[in-house]
Amino acid sequence: MRTQVAIIGAGPAGLLLSHLLHLQGIESVVLETRSRDEIESTIRAGVLEQGTMDILNETGVGARMRAEGALHHGFELAFDGRRHRIDLTELTGKAITVYAQHEVIKDLVAARLEAGARMLFGVRDVALHGVDTDRPHVTFTRDGAEERIDADFIAGCDGFHGVTRPALPQEGRNDYQRVYPFGWFGILVEAPPSAPELIYARHERGFALVSTRSPTVQRMYFQCDPKDNVDNWSDDRIWAELHARLENRDGWQVTEGKIFQKNIVAMRSFVSTPMQSGRLFLAGDAAHIVPPTGAKGMNLAVSDVRLLAAGLDAFYRRGSAELLDRYTDDALKRIWRAEYFSWWMTSMLHTFADASPFQREVQRAELENVVSSRALSTALAENYVGAF
Amino acid sequence: MRTQVAIIGAGPAGLLLSHLLHLQGIESVVLETRSRDEIESTIRAGVLEQGTMDILNETGVGARMRAEGALHHGFELAFDGRRHRIDLTELTGKAITVYAQHEVIKDLVAARLEAGARMLFGVRDVALHGVDTDRPHVTFTRDGAEERIDADFIAGCDGFHGVTRPALPQEGRNDYQRVYPFGWFGILVEAPPSAPELIYARHERGFALVSTRSPTVQRMYFQCDPKDNVDNWSDDRIWAELHARLENRDGWQVTEGKIFQKNIVAMRSFVSTPMQSGRLFLAGDAAHIVPPTGAKGMNLAVSDVRLLAAGLDAFYRRGSAELLDRYTDDALKRIWRAEYFSWWMTSMLHTFADASPFQREVQRAELENVVSSRALSTALAENYVGAF
Repeated sequence: MRTQVAIIGAGPAGLLLSHLLHLQGIESVVLETRSRDEIESTIRAGVLEQGTMDILNETGVGARMRAEGALHHGFELAFDGRRHRIDLTELTGKAITVYAQHEVIKDLVAARLEAGARMLFGVRDVALHGVDTDRPHVTFTRDGAEERIDADFIAGCDGFHGVTRPALPQEGRNDYQRVYPFGWFGILVEAPPSAPELIYARHERGFALVSTRSPTVQRMYFQCDPKDNVDNWSDDRIWAELHARLENRDGWQVTEGKIFQKNIVAMRSFVSTPMQSGRLFLAGDAAHIVPPTGAKGMNLAVSDVRLLAAGLDAFYRRGSAELLDRYTDDALKRIWRAEYFSWWMTSMLHTFADASPFQREVQRAELENVVSSRALSTALAENYVGAF
Repeated sequence: MRTQVAIIGAGPAGLLLSHLLHLQGIESVVLETRSRDEIESTIRAGVLEQGTMDILNETGVGARMRAEGALHHGFELAFDGRRHRIDLTELTGKAITVYAQHEVIKDLVAARLEAGARMLFGVRDVALHGVDTDRPHVTFTRDGAEERIDADFIAGCDGFHGVTRPALPQEGRNDYQRVYPFGWFGILVEAPPSAPELIYARHERGFALVSTRSPTVQRMYFQCDPKDNVDNWSDDRIWAELHARLENRDGWQVTEGKIFQKNIVAMRSFVSTPMQSGRLFLAGDAAHIVPPTGAKGMNLAVSDVRLLAAGLDAFYRRGSAELLDRYTDDALKRIWRAEYFSWWMTSMLHTFADASPFQREVQRAELENVVSSRALSTALAENYVGAF
């Protein structure tokens, strides 16, 4: 098989890249180890920045997001028994849309299929070859048979545990990492939303987050031991913990419902540079991870892919490799901003077992500063909506 | 001897308190272990917030500050070979005055003496008695003779190493502390200012600060091992270090001059609560310490003293102990804000030997966010000028 760009991974990064390239007249093939059904049903992130909404709308895949997504103009910070609203729109002129990542994936898959795209699901044994030549190729097996794709470029969009990052030369690589000493216990609940907007809560028992994925499915998290096991948590124990961390004397309550999924999310910050070598370019989680606190993961994947698509467009249209050559440098500006913001939100809202009494009071004072200073509220809000 | 308020310590806190009480018709005696000459010549802090300027002006001791102090409308943040101005006045409408602490002390001592105040310098063996009764007293020796002051109240303004904090009941006390793993090597230099405004520099060799005390005396600091010894640093070695940390290719240079003092300042954050018990009230460094990065130490002493003077006024004028009873709670609001800010500036600008590569990049990204976001610049500026 021959194509211009072989895209490894059918997450938001890979599918959006394929879609953007198609609109630019560039052919691609998408390889994915999971089934189409699995990628379209796995519930993951759900907060889209303005820029992410814009590109989905501008490229014709935003109709269902506009119809079914929930535009949020703010969120709440809860601590010391009080809740404070961060009015994103008043502070920044922008908003976010809560629309689940797997719904974005459905919309992109539908658009790609309608355009006749080649997307191969359930492939195995993906391997990259000749990435430092002008004629790289990818081998894989499908239904037991070995296949090969020859391409001009390979895009690594296969996430943190994918095969493309290890295919980059190890010499000269710099990895930056922080593994947080806690995880998020996440549940999916059949219930209406507990509150009209997201609630980020700092509590002495640990962080908690009330989020939503749709009018009937809610996503809630609470900070936990990353080595804990979901089997240790009965539904009753989970609700007791959420009530304890989120409620105070104002009468508001978390709305309970049937818990249909429990999982523990590790919390990690990670950046691997450079994001490219020869004809191989990484985008999204394949190159960097943020803890979910700032809701930046999917949005960073989108911003990487915009840059990569622009670079490939310049290459094919004008024969210029300039944008591709500086892809890593251009992408890292936004990535480090998001890494900083995600680290800040994580540091400010979680309890740290080794924090001194001084550090705990400073954390509280920082939150007080955030909610009492319009300037610092605005700084938080502009990072949250991605206004940078 | 009998007075209404016995004030232990003739630093900015004790002297300003004595001055404010006098204007309210309340008598005080100030006890100080050092000589008048020593307190009037020891060069320490030098940045006055708007609120500090205001109270000196409003109470008639601001004339020389207005004439000789330097009004600064901004400062510079230097990192990655570039300098960025934080325009305090444009961002907050406020400014700071650079006017050395010992000059403030001279002005306050002069005003107190002119008003006939009792100030006893060079006292020894100060001890507090009966602080949890309505008739506390202080004993001390002067010129070898034991003396005693009976008072209604005792104000502990004798700094971090003073005798008044240990005189508070130990039960129920909470101390919050962070000792930073570095110090500041400070020099006093006979030279004109190197730059019109202060320069806070983050460099891979460590933090550096170009500050000033007067048109002919400059104060410069650079981050050092807190256990280092000034004898290890020749003048040449000091200048080489400052040039390396502060200069880049833009041609600007630190102006050298005769170094007439070298010292190493420990970096500590500290808050001890409650700040009161019975008839004893602490103010300033006796109750809390900030690292000098945010220039908050003297300003916090002033804000404590304003609250304490108002509380004593309400007590004597209206017989109300309400303000005195909540003195600690009222003072802590501003203290924790300043502790947070000083910790933030310190964390953002120093190198930490145990920082991971991730943490170093996040620190750089935070500085980028500060200088590129008007909102975050404003948040920094309003903390710096004390607009809260």
